[in-house]
Amino acid sequence: MTEFFKNIPAITYQGPSATSEFAFRHYNPDEVVLGKRMEDHLRFAVAYWHSFAWPGGDPFGGQTLQRPWFGDSMDLARLKADVAFEMFDILGAPFYCFHDADIRPEGATFAESKRNLDEMVDYLGQKQADHKTQLLWGTANMFSNRRWMSGAATNPDPDVYAYAAATVKANMDATMKLGGQNYVLWGGREGYETLLNTDLKAERDHAGRFLQQVVEYKHKIGFKGAILIEPKPQEPSKHQYDYDVATVYGFLKEFGLEKEVQTNIEQGHAILAGHSFEHEIGMAAALGIFGSIDMNRNDYQSGWDTDQFPNNHAEKAVAFYEILRAGGYTTGGTNFDAKIRRQSLDAEDLILAHVGGMDTCARALKCAAAMLESDEMEAHRRDRYARWETPAAQAMLTGGLEAAAARVEAEGLEPEPVSGRQERLENLWNKYI
Amino acid sequence: MTEFFKNIPAITYQGPSATSEFAFRHYNPDEVVLGKRMEDHLRFAVAYWHSFAWPGGDPFGGQTLQRPWFGDSMDLARLKADVAFEMFDILGAPFYCFHDADIRPEGATFAESKRNLDEMVDYLGQKQADHKTQLLWGTANMFSNRRWMSGAATNPDPDVYAYAAATVKANMDATMKLGGQNYVLWGGREGYETLLNTDLKAERDHAGRFLQQVVEYKHKIGFKGAILIEPKPQEPSKHQYDYDVATVYGFLKEFGLEKEVQTNIEQGHAILAGHSFEHEIGMAAALGIFGSIDMNRNDYQSGWDTDQFPNNHAEKAVAFYEILRAGGYTTGGTNFDAKIRRQSLDAEDLILAHVGGMDTCARALKCAAAMLESDEMEAHRRDRYARWETPAAQAMLTGGLEAAAARVEAEGLEPEPVSGRQERLENLWNKYI
Amino acid sequence: MTEFFKNIPAITYQGPSATSEFAFRHYNPDEVVLGKRMEDHLRFAVAYWHSFAWPGGDPFGGQTLQRPWFGDSMDLARLKADVAFEMFDILGAPFYCFHDADIRPEGATFAESKRNLDEMVDYLGQKQADHKTQLLWGTANMFSNRRWMSGAATNPDPDVYAYAAATVKANMDATMKLGGQNYVLWGGREGYETLLNTDLKAERDHAGRFLQQVVEYKHKIGFKGAILIEPKPQEPSKHQYDYDVATVYGFLKEFGLEKEVQTNIEQGHAILAGHSFEHEIGMAAALGIFGSIDMNRNDYQSGWDTDQFPNNHAEKAVAFYEILRAGGYTTGGTNFDAKIRRQSLDAEDLILAHVGGMDTCARALKCAAAMLESDEMEAHRRDRYARWETPAAQAMLTGGLEAAAARVEAEGLEPEPVSGRQERLENLWNKYI
Amino acid sequence: MTEFFKNIPAITYQGPSATSEFAFRHYNPDEVVLGKRMEDHLRFAVAYWHSFAWPGGDPFGGQTLQRPWFGDSMDLARLKADVAFEMFDILGAPFYCFHDADIRPEGATFAESKRNLDEMVDYLGQKQADHKTQLLWGTANMFSNRRWMSGAATNPDPDVYAYAAATVKANMDATMKLGGQNYVLWGGREGYETLLNTDLKAERDHAGRFLQQVVEYKHKIGFKGAILIEPKPQEPSKHQYDYDVATVYGFLKEFGLEKEVQTNIEQGHAILAGHSFEHEIGMAAALGIFGSIDMNRNDYQSGWDTDQFPNNHAEKAVAFYEILRAGGYTTGGTNFDAKIRRQSLDAEDLILAHVGGMDTCARALKCAAAMLESDEMEAHRRDRYARWETPAAQAMLTGGLEAAAARVEAEGLEPEPVSGRQERLENLWNKYI
Repeated sequence: MTEFFKNIPAITYQGPSATSEFAFRHYNPDEVVLGKRMEDHLRFAVAYWHSFAWPGGDPFGGQTLQRPWFGDSMDLARLKADVAFEMFDILGAPFYCFHDADIRPEGATFAESKRNLDEMVDYLGQKQADHKTQLLWGTANMFSNRRWMSGAATNPDPDVYAYAAATVKANMDATMKLGGQNYVLWGGREGYETLLNTDLKAERDHAGRFLQQVVEYKHKIGFKGAILIEPKPQEPSKHQYDYDVATVYGFLKEFGLEKEVQTNIEQGHAILAGHSFEHEIGMAAALGIFGSIDMNRNDYQSGWDTDQFPNNHAEKAVAFYEILRAGGYTTGGTNFDAKIRRQSLDAEDLILAHVGGMDTCARALKCAAAMLESDEMEAHRRDRYARWETPAAQAMLTGGLEAAAARVEAEGLEPEPVSGRQERLENLWNKYI
Repeated sequence: MTEFFKNIPAITYQGPSATSEFAFRHYNPDEVVLGKRMEDHLRFAVAYWHSFAWPGGDPFGGQTLQRPWFGDSMDLARLKADVAFEMFDILGAPFYCFHDADIRPEGATFAESKRNLDEMVDYLGQKQADHKTQLLWGTANMFSNRRWMSGAATNPDPDVYAYAAATVKANMDATMKLGGQNYVLWGGREGYETLLNTDLKAERDHAGRFLQQVVEYKHKIGFKGAILIEPKPQEPSKHQYDYDVATVYGFLKEFGLEKEVQTNIEQGHAILAGHSFEHEIGMAAALGIFGSIDMNRNDYQSGWDTDQFPNNHAEKAVAFYEILRAGGYTTGGTNFDAKIRRQSLDAEDLILAHVGGMDTCARALKCAAAMLESDEMEAHRRDRYARWETPAAQAMLTGGLEAAAARVEAEGLEPEPVSGRQERLENLWNKYI
Repeated sequence: MTEFFKNIPAITYQGPSATSEFAFRHYNPDEVVLGKRMEDHLRFAVAYWHSFAWPGGDPFGGQTLQRPWFGDSMDLARLKADVAFEMFDILGAPFYCFHDADIRPEGATFAESKRNLDEMVDYLGQKQADHKTQLLWGTANMFSNRRWMSGAATNPDPDVYAYAAATVKANMDATMKLGGQNYVLWGGREGYETLLNTDLKAERDHAGRFLQQVVEYKHKIGFKGAILIEPKPQEPSKHQYDYDVATVYGFLKEFGLEKEVQTNIEQGHAILAGHSFEHEIGMAAALGIFGSIDMNRNDYQSGWDTDQFPNNHAEKAVAFYEILRAGGYTTGGTNFDAKIRRQSLDAEDLILAHVGGMDTCARALKCAAAMLESDEMEAHRRDRYARWETPAAQAMLTGGLEAAAARVEAEGLEPEPVSGRQERLENLWNKYI
Repeated sequence: MTEFFKNIPAITYQGPSATSEFAFRHYNPDEVVLGKRMEDHLRFAVAYWHSFAWPGGDPFGGQTLQRPWFGDSMDLARLKADVAFEMFDILGAPFYCFHDADIRPEGATFAESKRNLDEMVDYLGQKQADHKTQLLWGTANMFSNRRWMSGAATNPDPDVYAYAAATVKANMDATMKLGGQNYVLWGGREGYETLLNTDLKAERDHAGRFLQQVVEYKHKIGFKGAILIEPKPQEPSKHQYDYDVATVYGFLKEFGLEKEVQTNIEQGHAILAGHSFEHEIGMAAALGIFGSIDMNRNDYQSGWDTDQFPNNHAEKAVAFYEILRAGGYTTGGTNFDAKIRRQSLDAEDLILAHVGGMDTCARALKCAAAMLESDEMEAHRRDRYARWETPAAQAMLTGGLEAAAARVEAEGLEPEPVSGRQERLENLWNKYI
């Protein structure tokens, strides 16, 4: 045992009236909701990067967090893993996620980075064997190092494309070896800073071919997990190609990948793209590409990605409702891509941020489940569209414009609008919150 | 002749040093730019709606503009058309555009509205015969009347879908009869106010089938113009399905229409979606769906669609550069979907707003053409991606992930980043402004 | 009794498990919270304008709502008042608010408008005598009519200033006669569309002098209520002078009015200005100018003022916490400046929107009161700043820069940062939600 | 001479048709504009921080720029100064600006940092003696080091206030010694991350007292330059106290400093606050607190501070017009608080970014000057407000509300609105662009 979390107890469910900060008030892993344990619904994952690799900097200030494992040696990487699994244990988290750069020191060459990765994969494999927590997904950090500054697969330099291919291959191998249930791609630098120096079509074509190669490789090695794309509209780039769910869908269709790739949706990214979180989930479900969640929240008054822990269960309930309507997660889960504030210096802060986030999600899930079980919302929705089930309505869709138009004149149609009942449905929600 | 524009002269090109307000300083229709007359490049169209149908209201105030043709009779509709063509003559505009609701009074029934439309189409046909100005495109207003409040093709009520079909059919017929070169669909209410009462998948399916029917009908009647979708992310709806160019592309792919339908891009809508105008044009070109332009600007400090006349040629030059790179317009054109401010009460304001907008575009076109002719920007772009032309690079694309990855290890690749030169390219732009 | 709300029962408190839509689940007027009845804490007011005068239009569509009292006669104005008081009764609302334009038809001249106003004031006075509901505040609509298009007190035309003076005087008289507890000024057109035609300094000076005259008149007639300014950053104008609370404070200081005028704060306006609702309340309290609340919410994904009914009590609890910390309302109250969606056509929608909003506020108030009573949050806050109470710290403030600086060298100060504990405090909040 | 800029020539004015990148096309220091040399109008300053201290990081990636002077020793600090003055010479910049942290390595203690600062001040003093370039202003970096994470003067820990006092004193002394013409305070961490742990009133009071102490110290040491506050609404903090010009004005009034302190206005910050650049300048002029400019631009599609070099002279012309209307700079100047993009790796990029920025400003200045000289815009403005000069209008301001109101009834006033002519004035602008 390291000293980092000493004196912090394992967090257990103690109910809404718990007096200790170090307790779940709402997250009760074994409680059955809609026929499934909460843990199996929520499939919480801890993000290695924000919790163990982020030093607390922002564009106007440097490191605030001081961690005994910060540094570049393999020993420190192992210490970091030890502390990470101690936190996973304290939280009882079933999953974690990582980028290669989170778990291993960067080497001087690709080969050295790869060796470091392989060693740490072995170390983490042993950790997983000894602990409950398993790998939800792995990914490659292809945005921090200066080599990626102009993109990875979309880089004007084909050597960087090659480097990206080698990097993703190594990470897919690592993820598979660790039993990861998904492999994620976030195109942080796949975009542009200025159109003036950019060949949009070439970059899209390269990105599309790269993703095809990833899918081909997945099948080749027999990786059973899902391939996930994480949409984000901008930041760090001025414009990122995976702008939002609808954009990713068009991209997948263009390259014939819409059956092969799903989305990893993040609230903060949804908001930067001008959408609500529930919109992005609902849209992904409608398009058949819903996969997993990066759970955080943005500050609605900030125009950048604040990646804060969720703390409003009323807001999150609507998101979980869309997840439940979509059938819940299969390989996906609820990954906390959320970081403590840079002023939250203490080990306790790190634990309690997760406790609050998990409780917020658990509470939201229960509200959403009760709503779904009641069928009150769905009954209204079905009723609103019920007239589309009539033969005449269906015939309009199969026929042509003229046939549909003919009905108007033949029947003298002058449709009278019907209330959308938005406020009543919002009140209905609040009955379940 | 009506009295409305009395004392306002026809606007002619008088060069940059013109002293009169009522002169073009930059728009010289017959001047040849890149081998084509400016008029044929720019293909200006005047929007009937903002200039002749809008009363000057906003969410906090009513009508400010007082026009002798405001009202609901056929006589007033004809007076409006008379004034409109007087303005087209004054400006020398080669084109105009309209919604049905702009040119005819709404009837008490569909049949009456249709009769009014047919009569006005005849009247406008005569006008076109007597004047230079022809129809760039027609469209249906399916957002103002309360029947459309919950959508047209995406309405929960199939009778509204039928009404929309009848309306679009009537407008396609009208557009064809008037020799319109395009038919436009803007989905102003095709979206939602709240997800709580919305069936996303059903609404998308209905919208997709509707568009297929439109395309089928186009071929049936032999309409040779283009079908255009106008993306907009929101307003009036909280979320509109035709969010931006990339979203429209995914939608077209889903319904097999990406070869049949193009986009009509508006700067204001681009900005509301978080994009630059040039981004949307460049993206449409890259995806093969660039069609036409609704020219206006948004106020960068306002979060709604301000639809102002363009007045910054330096900004517009980058947009026209993307249009020229895309090969210029075919059936499309530069439609002013821009309205004078509600405090701009006078007939002179209406004329001068167009004069300023046309000059801004003309100046932008000339800058863009000079840049393209110099090849300075394109030479840099080609150079930046040149290494992709090598056999090794091309082989990486055709091969698999492993082959690409193998190069890294075999060749010990450690790619060194290269300057993106953004500021130098921005300076280069300014050489041509 | 009119027919409008027939079959809708009076809304009573039935507790969280109420099964009817037509019941309060949380708002229990007589329940005592922090030693005061909930009704006396919340001081709910219904806004005449959105609920009875707004036809349901938006920038892209006209009237959707059809009300039997819509029109311009005095008879219809009286019918409107009858229906309004029926709704006030159904809700048990203690207060209402109006603009002159909501309650009387506009006349052909100022004198006729004034006569209409006077008659309706008598009619409303009688209504108030017969009903529980009294006037929270009155105000003048100086933004809808075209005469105000370039501002009221800030108009370039001094005759409009005169008209504004006459209008405000009439409305202050009316408010006083009806026992109104406040008089509100919202500067909807006090701002500019373009700097190019604006004399910023002159317009500010006129606005300042106007407000001084309002205060002088208040004292002259012995009006005991508060004068309130409602900040809003933009919309309808590009820039409005009463941008936010801090801007209003500077304006009041400039014209010596900071002891005479307070603020009426609206969440939607706060958000448009880039602030949270609780920020604006807390800032007003810190500056000594907190007065009253316009309760609504904005849609976080829309860039304009959506004025929706509040429905997230977790969010509102933080706002009510700031109100309670500021000592609660004195003459102010919770006015619903919120409108039903334009698709919410039915009388039931109007009632239920208010029921939901009132319940959301009541629930928020109870959470905030429990938090304040526990002192948990305040204890942390006091503790965080406790070191400022030491004599050495206080001496630093009274001394000069050099004395403060001298401490650093003398004591070798190298201050160690302390955790801000944000996530723990957010968890603490959730204990009370 | 260092090697860094070898082969880069001194930049000279070569006129609009210059073929070299390394030439001014518009900035001609000795050209007389409105009776003053351009250099004396524009008073360009180079920012030490972005150009010499920034490593090219962003929230998702680390250092991209590799400079021989990066590191923490005094030798490297001197090398950095050598290179900086070489660039100042190449550009012919009359001024530069710095934070303490830009010019000296941070020491292990305050005393060591101070010693480093003092040594570097001597070194820079010698540089200034040998070169043309002098100090426009100095400032203290009180946001990067972790000690400032919760604020400087507004820190909950009074020891940090003391540290801030000692730091500002040292920097004021340094600035005075180097003949700096202004001293600037930017409150990067003077604000909050969450209201939950913040005492707004106490923090404002401390900030106010701190600023009073700064002003007292200025007078004590006889510093003749101006004290400037730089407004910014947010980033890095969620909310910053110096939100915008109007907020700063209220703050200065509260603490009796409005005659002592002026503003340093930055376009990027204006935009983040929801304002145009010209608005902030015009507002500062109207309030009597205009001081200086931080020149950059934001990307209108990004919600954070992008600090890019200005490249649109049409946009900047309106800003320079407001500066000229305000009488131009006295002690202030045009400081480039703009950084090259992180992909702009080369020494040439650094030079050319400044060349482009200086040319953009010069071109904007010339347009603005020509407009002002023509008096066309001002004639319209005077005319618009001319009726306020009449005795009747002036009497309205000195009298009370009743007198003004009485005019309406006595004269039967029904003011007719007059066109605001926005588009015509925009066209007028373009005549001078």
